[in-house]
Amino acid sequence: MQVDTGKARTALQLRSLVKSSGELELSLARVTVPSPAPDEVVIRVDASPINPSDLGLLFGAADMSTATQSGTLANPVVTASIPERRLASMAGRLDQSMPVGNEGAGLVVEAGASDAARALLGRTVAVSGGAMYSQYRCVKAEHCLALPEGTTAAEGASCFINPLTALGMVETMRLEGHTALVHTAAASNLGRMLNRICIADGVGLVNIVRSAPQEDLLRALGARHVCNSSAPSFIDDLTAAIAATGATIAFDAIGGGKLAGQILTCMETVLSRSVTAYSRYGSTTRKQVYVYGALDVGPTVLDRRFGFAWSIGGWLLTAFLQKIGPAAAQKLRARVIAELKTTFASHYSKVISLADALRLDEIAVYGTRATGGKYLINPNQGVAD
Amino acid sequence: MQVDTGKARTALQLRSLVKSSGELELSLARVTVPSPAPDEVVIRVDASPINPSDLGLLFGAADMSTATQSGTLANPVVTASIPERRLASMAGRLDQSMPVGNEGAGLVVEAGASDAARALLGRTVAVSGGAMYSQYRCVKAEHCLALPEGTTAAEGASCFINPLTALGMVETMRLEGHTALVHTAAASNLGRMLNRICIADGVGLVNIVRSAPQEDLLRALGARHVCNSSAPSFIDDLTAAIAATGATIAFDAIGGGKLAGQILTCMETVLSRSVTAYSRYGSTTRKQVYVYGALDVGPTVLDRRFGFAWSIGGWLLTAFLQKIGPAAAQKLRARVIAELKTTFASHYSKVISLADALRLDEIAVYGTRATGGKYLINPNQGVAD
Repeated sequence: MQVDTGKARTALQLRSLVKSSGELELSLARVTVPSPAPDEVVIRVDASPINPSDLGLLFGAADMSTATQSGTLANPVVTASIPERRLASMAGRLDQSMPVGNEGAGLVVEAGASDAARALLGRTVAVSGGAMYSQYRCVKAEHCLALPEGTTAAEGASCFINPLTALGMVETMRLEGHTALVHTAAASNLGRMLNRICIADGVGLVNIVRSAPQEDLLRALGARHVCNSSAPSFIDDLTAAIAATGATIAFDAIGGGKLAGQILTCMETVLSRSVTAYSRYGSTTRKQVYVYGALDVGPTVLDRRFGFAWSIGGWLLTAFLQKIGPAAAQKLRARVIAELKTTFASHYSKVISLADALRLDEIAVYGTRATGGKYLINPNQGVAD
Repeated sequence: MQVDTGKARTALQLRSLVKSSGELELSLARVTVPSPAPDEVVIRVDASPINPSDLGLLFGAADMSTATQSGTLANPVVTASIPERRLASMAGRLDQSMPVGNEGAGLVVEAGASDAARALLGRTVAVSGGAMYSQYRCVKAEHCLALPEGTTAAEGASCFINPLTALGMVETMRLEGHTALVHTAAASNLGRMLNRICIADGVGLVNIVRSAPQEDLLRALGARHVCNSSAPSFIDDLTAAIAATGATIAFDAIGGGKLAGQILTCMETVLSRSVTAYSRYGSTTRKQVYVYGALDVGPTVLDRRFGFAWSIGGWLLTAFLQKIGPAAAQKLRARVIAELKTTFASHYSKVISLADALRLDEIAVYGTRATGGKYLINPNQGVAD
């Protein structure tokens, strides 16, 4: 069952290529969209967010301050150089032109013969399939999340990564025996979702932000504990908030610098207040920091003044979903859909086209990973199909 | 049942006092030894090692380069100043005169009325009871480990911390699903035990040492994989050793500096060789470093070029023993006793008295935490009882 037949459909697709010569090249390729197999559908992608996790694949290890643009207005090419010392970390993707875009949403315009595929025809669906910075994507029907009637592609574009990550943090907190949590870069879209989840679920949350305006933003959203890491009183503020909530687990989007260690130190300060006998090994309560992002790619510096009951490690959504299994993951997805316009609403500062995504002035904005600079790509905006 | 009666027995005991004025004071106190309760025994302590874990309690946060000695030859007093910025970390022990010495061995010279206590009278026993830098200690009979006939106190003095820590590393490796391990500061007494355990059990072990002589020492002890962190080829050597063994867990005695991160990076280099599809999140195999010591108290610096499947955290023997439970812990203890003169043999460079332990020239040797400078205290050496 196809909406339109005739010659094979093609689509513009954003590509990132790291050359072994040490150069990054971003461009738009025209690719053929396969006809759907019985269990597949073709989606016209109308909205796909630029997440921090996309920037890593998009820019690789390139120094984007060296970026230059060539090509045409409709078909631009951006090149940038990769510092030689960082090229080794790109070994796994050298000279492979890679599609980008982890998630997005759009209209199902073509469907394979199976019932599951046909049921989606004409529906707006979200998908977390990669290569979403494409006009069209052919994907398995079972990977599509049909959005409720009245939901736009833009509203559903970010319904996987941020919502499931925020829910995954709270679930991880519970699974590992903690009762409250700390979150860094808390004014982000993800941070605001987590704030809403914690208010709804009655979970203690310490929000760490990097500026006074972000502090105001979160307080206006009902956050009780907000600590500004640029304030002189930060360590005292953080200690007080951890004492008030009892948080012994943190999720850190930043990764580099001293913050993860400071969180552990403040937790230990609070825990040591209730210790009766001195132990040079510190409190026996386990303190955990999970690093789930790399807003600061510099080294993590741990000034280990927090005893021996501590752990810091990487946290990835895909690994978490595998760990809890399909049934538990499905429950989380159902909650996201039910609360898509409230708890899990995303905010974007701008909607851009694929060609816009390769403009140096736009890269300078969305490439900073700064809160409030979040973009949505509409791969079909301004495109003559 | 008592060997000798009459006036209460007293004992010299080494004490460490951190004053709120910011001064450390080490001295010998004369304390009264209690008469044993029915379930207790009195041990004449003949041998107690100076472990790195003892140095932390002994010196606190003092800068031992400022140490001065006063008092008499038989009753010396050592004082040293504590940097003001480090005094806060001592809050839990301020102005409390604390006994020192985690473990040791000696002769049971007095016993309570219970059968268990009486059975130990005249036996040489080992105990991990704290305050072992004392001439005599009154402890529960059930906490004593009776050494086999023909075993001296010196041979049994270190039969808890190092042997159980080494066995605990191998057990942790197995419990957490790894098949080989990396160990730092591997030429230590503990490292040599671990090397013997791994050879006996057929477990792959990567020994990281800090000098060429230590490398030679371990190779002479049959170690197959020894990497010298001071060699220019260290990263290549470590990567090759990890590839050869498949090690994905490490135990680090050092804590500070870049080594823990380098181990994770080398593990990731090896794991990424068998990855077929590029992922900017790195390999999915979990890489673990446990920090169990603090030979370098400086910050841990993690240059996170090892994906997201990683974890680094504190590891403590006491927490490990609690986790595995009494029955499993008893099995480990039984192995230690059975192999005390072989697998778990310790080596000391010198045996000193309690008064010697407060000599500045001796502190300068045993306080460096350097491999090969390990001392044993005999609290009854040179003492007129």
